[in-house]
Amino acid sequence: MKISLGARTLVYPTPVFCVGTYDAEGKPNAMAVAWGGVCCSKPPCVAISLRKATYTYGSLVESKAFTVSVPSRDHVVAADYFGIASGRDVDKFAAAGLTPARSDLVDAPYVAEFPLVLECKVVHVAELGLHTLFVGEILDVKIEEDCLDAEGKPSADLVRPFTWAPGDNLYYALGEKLGRGFTVGKALQEEKE
Amino acid sequence: MKISLGARTLVYPTPVFCVGTYDAEGKPNAMAVAWGGVCCSKPPCVAISLRKATYTYGSLVESKAFTVSVPSRDHVVAADYFGIASGRDVDKFAAAGLTPARSDLVDAPYVAEFPLVLECKVVHVAELGLHTLFVGEILDVKIEEDCLDAEGKPSADLVRPFTWAPGDNLYYALGEKLGRGFTVGKALQEEKE
Repeated sequence: MKISLGARTLVYPTPVFCVGTYDAEGKPNAMAVAWGGVCCSKPPCVAISLRKATYTYGSLVESKAFTVSVPSRDHVVAADYFGIASGRDVDKFAAAGLTPARSDLVDAPYVAEFPLVLECKVVHVAELGLHTLFVGEILDVKIEEDCLDAEGKPSADLVRPFTWAPGDNLYYALGEKLGRGFTVGKALQEEKE
Repeated sequence: MKISLGARTLVYPTPVFCVGTYDAEGKPNAMAVAWGGVCCSKPPCVAISLRKATYTYGSLVESKAFTVSVPSRDHVVAADYFGIASGRDVDKFAAAGLTPARSDLVDAPYVAEFPLVLECKVVHVAELGLHTLFVGEILDVKIEEDCLDAEGKPSADLVRPFTWAPGDNLYYALGEKLGRGFTVGKALQEEKE
């Protein structure tokens, strides 16, 4: 039996994307966002949504560029901090003891210590209400060498990303493997069709 | 040391959203998408991206409505099947042995057996390339009663959602709890600022 919770933003899983920008003075900043996700395969694009009140919003509108740094579970405290503090008031990289690395492709910094990074230029903007949606074309993905498996392929087990659950307001690591995509459903396809 | 993987859609975590629509004849359909996420808090909105070639695309353009049914880990086979088969060729609900429930708010069906459902009307469309991004305003969220905790709040532990990792092409359950959002980072804020 389902019950109604009303109009709200409850869905699982949501990401923890640390969005990197430079402000007008060139100070690097990073902000954690859970409202985002991949939105196109060709060209590869990722969407993030920001409130206009955030410091990142103004920087991103000016530079039309951002990075997404994906934290590993070792960086949950820093990532959470990136979602609490404002770059208007403080140098969040310095406070978190993390290194802003300049992207060689877009005018934005990424978190050098985080294992996975997307470098993006803004290609679409939509005013939706409290949040503005920015679509960034992913110009490159960079990953720590030690997050590649024996075959040289990116491994979530080695990146060790985490997710945020809105209802409980909890961060969860990835857990048990449940099966392979575009594969486990084939049994049903062959059986039932 | 980071290495470049080129322009691609590698990021963690991505969701497994089962998008429900009716086709022109009123046949219910569901399609699994990993390209999506929340994109606005007020009004609450969720984005999903579809290739024009999918059967769901045509249905959604006509109806301007969709649902997002979030599968529990018990439904990983059915959810994967929803991402493999096409509603053009088959009744996917029937093949998966699942029940299409008519939304009372929008012209779209949801998966009755899945624990969490969002009912959405399309408020923005963006052509990005291979994919079209649809922003849906969330008119209501419905959840199974037994997915509420003792205080009546939605619990990810009880919904038991899962995520898809693009690099490995694996489904992962949620695992260990790593801390509370907007909380674990406060220590760093007090310590370093």
